[in-house]
Amino acid sequence: MGCISKTPLTVRYAETDRMGIVHHSRYYPWFECGRTDFIKLSGMTYSQMEACGVLLPLVETSAKYIEGARYEDEIVVETSLESLGAVRCCFCYSVVRRADGKVLATGKTAHAFVNGDFRPINLKKKHPLLWEQLGALL
Amino acid sequence: MGCISKTPLTVRYAETDRMGIVHHSRYYPWFECGRTDFIKLSGMTYSQMEACGVLLPLVETSAKYIEGARYEDEIVVETSLESLGAVRCCFCYSVVRRADGKVLATGKTAHAFVNGDFRPINLKKKHPLLWEQLGALL
Amino acid sequence: MGCISKTPLTVRYAETDRMGIVHHSRYYPWFECGRTDFIKLSGMTYSQMEACGVLLPLVETSAKYIEGARYEDEIVVETSLESLGAVRCCFCYSVVRRADGKVLATGKTAHAFVNGDFRPINLKKKHPLLWEQLGALL
Amino acid sequence: MGCISKTPLTVRYAETDRMGIVHHSRYYPWFECGRTDFIKLSGMTYSQMEACGVLLPLVETSAKYIEGARYEDEIVVETSLESLGAVRCCFCYSVVRRADGKVLATGKTAHAFVNGDFRPINLKKKHPLLWEQLGALL
Repeated sequence: MGCISKTPLTVRYAETDRMGIVHHSRYYPWFECGRTDFIKLSGMTYSQMEACGVLLPLVETSAKYIEGARYEDEIVVETSLESLGAVRCCFCYSVVRRADGKVLATGKTAHAFVNGDFRPINLKKKHPLLWEQLGALL
Repeated sequence: MGCISKTPLTVRYAETDRMGIVHHSRYYPWFECGRTDFIKLSGMTYSQMEACGVLLPLVETSAKYIEGARYEDEIVVETSLESLGAVRCCFCYSVVRRADGKVLATGKTAHAFVNGDFRPINLKKKHPLLWEQLGALL
Repeated sequence: MGCISKTPLTVRYAETDRMGIVHHSRYYPWFECGRTDFIKLSGMTYSQMEACGVLLPLVETSAKYIEGARYEDEIVVETSLESLGAVRCCFCYSVVRRADGKVLATGKTAHAFVNGDFRPINLKKKHPLLWEQLGALL
Repeated sequence: MGCISKTPLTVRYAETDRMGIVHHSRYYPWFECGRTDFIKLSGMTYSQMEACGVLLPLVETSAKYIEGARYEDEIVVETSLESLGAVRCCFCYSVVRRADGKVLATGKTAHAFVNGDFRPINLKKKHPLLWEQLGALL
């Protein structure tokens, strides 16, 4: 069982749509908030990673929606690192409603490791220390 | 081979992020634009469907990203109906760059049929005509 | 000098654009987060106000941008109620960077009081208690 | 009377909020779509301007909302250049509903001219041709 970061958020009005619930696309920026916090556990922020020329563009995203989050709901995004390869990694997410602990949605994102020119890099070789620090969170 | 609707869009500045490409979450509203146009082919707009008490909340979404769309790119969202059950349906999408025909991303969305109170409905029984009109687009 | 609510936020990646800074439109949802917290000081949440048939649609918005907020910046939205009339109110906002206290942006929003059918209401007459509770925050 | 560009758009579901109308912050990306089309009239795209090291970050934005746009509404963003100084310019916008020609909202944006390092530049001196081409649209 690896590390899990917990990111508390409050649902914004602007995140809802005319169905009265949070628009499905808005869970992905929440996952990203979770990822931002998770990566900090490695000892480096994602801003610092980008400054070092390591970008993590998305290659796949997916989500399952169980119950719609609503305006002013307090939620927690739970994030974990599902897999870490030399050239790619995957994160997992759960969006939990604080009031009753119900999981409202789950998701996954797969990322490539690329440099500032969007060329694929082998993170394990190029930045072995960072790669190990991430790996310790698995 | 079913119907395919084609929705032309121009990438907005606000859709990009600091990586210089379109943020991954922004493809989902594009898929939704495609879905809006596709549903019109049934003879009914999605606004009209909602006014009749038929909502299509998302139960699953997924996307694969091949190359990042960029500001001012002209793209086309190609939408088709992958499956239509009594209580659920799935749509497929391709985001194509007009300049060279390259597929930049693909996606799928699965929807439940619910009424205005978010109770599941059997669309085939409740609105057989609409269900058949959608089915004719498969 | 009236009440000021303080809403801490961390800048999200999805809020940046290809200029590398937060997109100008994204400050308005932050103002809204500030407003949500401010309204709670009245003893009622904005969700509860809407449930009581009091909506506050925007009639005017404006913002001045001094320095661009950046991904992972920790900011505080400071919100105050500038004016409260019988049929309308105005809020003021400052977005402050926590690291150095610099004001990155300021803004104002003007709101009408309407009911669930978007008909203007005189809040002072219709909901005098709520109107007084808001007025106490001026 | 200067040039006016007209940008047709269809309101997206993701642009609405739980009030049932378009979220007030979403008009600013529409203004930006209008600005993108307006700038093209100068003979240069905004992408090309940025590639030449001319960025137009926002220093002020404002909008007035007359009637809420709704999902699937067809609208036109009318854009004009209100003023052009050596170091700054202002654009004006109207959002018009196609069905009845009603103006739903108006807005203004003020921009600084800066280089890729966000240092202010005197566009008139630095890029006199571009400055004149924009000026011809006043």
